[in-house]
Amino acid sequence: MKKLIAEFIGTFWLVLGGCGSAVLACNFPDAGIGFVGVALAFGLTVLTIAYSLGHISGAHLNPAVSIGLWVGGRFDTKELIPYIVAQVLGGIAAAGILYVIATGNGSDIGGFASNGYGELSPGKYSMNAAFLTEVVMTFIFLIVILGATDDRAPKGFAGLAIGLALTLIHLISIPVTNTSVNPARSISQAVFVGGEALSQLWLFIVAPIIGALIAGIVYKSIFSKE
Amino acid sequence: MKKLIAEFIGTFWLVLGGCGSAVLACNFPDAGIGFVGVALAFGLTVLTIAYSLGHISGAHLNPAVSIGLWVGGRFDTKELIPYIVAQVLGGIAAAGILYVIATGNGSDIGGFASNGYGELSPGKYSMNAAFLTEVVMTFIFLIVILGATDDRAPKGFAGLAIGLALTLIHLISIPVTNTSVNPARSISQAVFVGGEALSQLWLFIVAPIIGALIAGIVYKSIFSKE
Amino acid sequence: MKKLIAEFIGTFWLVLGGCGSAVLACNFPDAGIGFVGVALAFGLTVLTIAYSLGHISGAHLNPAVSIGLWVGGRFDTKELIPYIVAQVLGGIAAAGILYVIATGNGSDIGGFASNGYGELSPGKYSMNAAFLTEVVMTFIFLIVILGATDDRAPKGFAGLAIGLALTLIHLISIPVTNTSVNPARSISQAVFVGGEALSQLWLFIVAPIIGALIAGIVYKSIFSKE
Amino acid sequence: MKKLIAEFIGTFWLVLGGCGSAVLACNFPDAGIGFVGVALAFGLTVLTIAYSLGHISGAHLNPAVSIGLWVGGRFDTKELIPYIVAQVLGGIAAAGILYVIATGNGSDIGGFASNGYGELSPGKYSMNAAFLTEVVMTFIFLIVILGATDDRAPKGFAGLAIGLALTLIHLISIPVTNTSVNPARSISQAVFVGGEALSQLWLFIVAPIIGALIAGIVYKSIFSKE
Repeated sequence: MKKLIAEFIGTFWLVLGGCGSAVLACNFPDAGIGFVGVALAFGLTVLTIAYSLGHISGAHLNPAVSIGLWVGGRFDTKELIPYIVAQVLGGIAAAGILYVIATGNGSDIGGFASNGYGELSPGKYSMNAAFLTEVVMTFIFLIVILGATDDRAPKGFAGLAIGLALTLIHLISIPVTNTSVNPARSISQAVFVGGEALSQLWLFIVAPIIGALIAGIVYKSIFSKE
Repeated sequence: MKKLIAEFIGTFWLVLGGCGSAVLACNFPDAGIGFVGVALAFGLTVLTIAYSLGHISGAHLNPAVSIGLWVGGRFDTKELIPYIVAQVLGGIAAAGILYVIATGNGSDIGGFASNGYGELSPGKYSMNAAFLTEVVMTFIFLIVILGATDDRAPKGFAGLAIGLALTLIHLISIPVTNTSVNPARSISQAVFVGGEALSQLWLFIVAPIIGALIAGIVYKSIFSKE
Repeated sequence: MKKLIAEFIGTFWLVLGGCGSAVLACNFPDAGIGFVGVALAFGLTVLTIAYSLGHISGAHLNPAVSIGLWVGGRFDTKELIPYIVAQVLGGIAAAGILYVIATGNGSDIGGFASNGYGELSPGKYSMNAAFLTEVVMTFIFLIVILGATDDRAPKGFAGLAIGLALTLIHLISIPVTNTSVNPARSISQAVFVGGEALSQLWLFIVAPIIGALIAGIVYKSIFSKE
Repeated sequence: MKKLIAEFIGTFWLVLGGCGSAVLACNFPDAGIGFVGVALAFGLTVLTIAYSLGHISGAHLNPAVSIGLWVGGRFDTKELIPYIVAQVLGGIAAAGILYVIATGNGSDIGGFASNGYGELSPGKYSMNAAFLTEVVMTFIFLIVILGATDDRAPKGFAGLAIGLALTLIHLISIPVTNTSVNPARSISQAVFVGGEALSQLWLFIVAPIIGALIAGIVYKSIFSKE
């Protein structure tokens, strides 16, 4: 239970911090943080939780991460579903808080920080480009996670490498899909926005999971110690 | 006494660095650092003091942090008031130096880097949105602090995680309240600006303390080792 | 073979992350990441791979790095050519993926993220300035790599120092050459752009290798332990 | 001699990286790195050299740092003058290389990255404001250096804390003086610019040294172990 609360709080922070910075601060007049600030914010949510609650739950904060670790032989089957439920609920709770704050100056939420392709892609990228992007980004994200938490990697640096990997992924792919690589993050925004964002949600569940599965298999079969 | 001088110098640096970057560099024409630079500056004040004076005083630099650590069972009751006094005095001293520098080109200080809600919020967010924001941000800040300094967390990385947590908090919430999560920082600016900034100061004392109290109780009751 | 796959994936990530951020996000309207975001992205590709696959292959990701380490007495002669082949192929594979994504909104790739001098230099710097820049930047890059992986340097921090050295190199030299210091990265872009970019490619192979050779000799003869 | 070559190369990199990013990339049209990028560049020069050549020479790279460490009882009297000479020569060598690169597109160097007050201050700050700023910034810089390299501080993190302290100092004070806190850096630019920049150079030698002296005395008398 302690682990599930940690995953709830951690994913809450990932969505509030990452999506919150995007909604509140990205395009603030004259001093807005831009995509570089949003990318930094997403990465720092993971970095800060990895070092503070990682010793409780492992700080997955993302169903694709839990699945990738499970396929890679690092995570127990019986914990998989409870972790994913805690992550999705934490994300939705954060989106609710963000909704209250973001509308607190009379704005409406617009597209919130939802993910999308085609007309909903920030740079109008096609569904195929979006799918490919999400698969490849999540693939590398899981390679970094599996590698940095390997016994042979330098001790203590995993939280830094994994957090900054998420920053890097956002530096590349916000223009394409607004960057998911995390179904819990995508679900949290889509349920508040509804409509077209909700009908595109499947891609941001399926593609990250495919990328994570490939990474789990590749790392386990090629790079594992034994 | 050595500890109190460390807290004085550390909070001096937090206010001079964080508020100083906001006042002097945020909106400098053509090359201004924007909210992303101010967020980085606030975080780096904590990171740099944590690694240099943390071994003297623990580098709280913030009354809400001292209170959260005290409720979480990590800080001695008899040190609480002296720490808070040193922090508030260090912040005011920095604001005085910043006043001299900032007016050294004939500018007046305007709103300085004071915190505010409603008309004084950078994005005109309501008092309720501001209150909620400060409570939640300080809650997570203290969870990160309590977790990263837990015996079970990776050794040495606490200063990095805590400093960058403060950066992250600013990336999200500067538009809402100009970000406090620290009564000493808020007091230091309000006493120089006076007027409406001073009459809104209560929120930036009360809300961070509430967030810190909740975090102290949550961490101690749910995540502690014993 | 395991090592070569790690070099392939790592250099794939360097090009997809670094060049990808440049092509997709650098000049995105209103919120583009600019050269500072591209610099961060290049550095983080190295940082993330160093901490995740460094224990497999050493994470060179760059023919000039492999050559510099070889001259510095840190890398085995018989591994040199296979590493370089894996790096070049990984870079080209990433450029292929990036081509598919970048054209996924109907754009053409323009100059991609190719390197250049004279008319192809972002700031129109001459061939001589470009050559000098690439030699000096790669020289220091290899000094940092050789020094940070020296037995006497602090343990675990090499990935951080080396990754951020690449960020720093980009912060300085993107205006001059679009920054190479890495023949694999330059080749990957030039083969897709062709024309003038391809005919200038020699400089971005020769100059980084010269810089790396000098650094290997200097470090070995002056700074080595024995 | 090995130490002096390390200080020469390190200060060469500090000036080429920090001043180079300012001259070449700060105000590049549309994608310029701004003060935030320049601040990052200065800090990363120190961070990268600290982790790569720190085990050779201690990576001072700055006469004020050598003087502060000497007063603080951490640096040998007979090494002081040779270190300072190596630092000044390294800085001038870098300024020479930067001159060749920066003029390689037909530009003249303008004010280069020289420091100044009054009319030469980026934000037109007075001599008094500039003097106060340089004293206080160098004072804190040395407190961070003395503290982070204290035996009681976390092992290995000094390079990170000290490098990012220099980033933070630039985030605050570029508008006031273009930020020195380092006589070698100031001298290197002033000798190429001449004129008024040269006649204001005294302040950027005297004020940093005063700040460093105060810090050395304060740290030694208040925070030292014995």
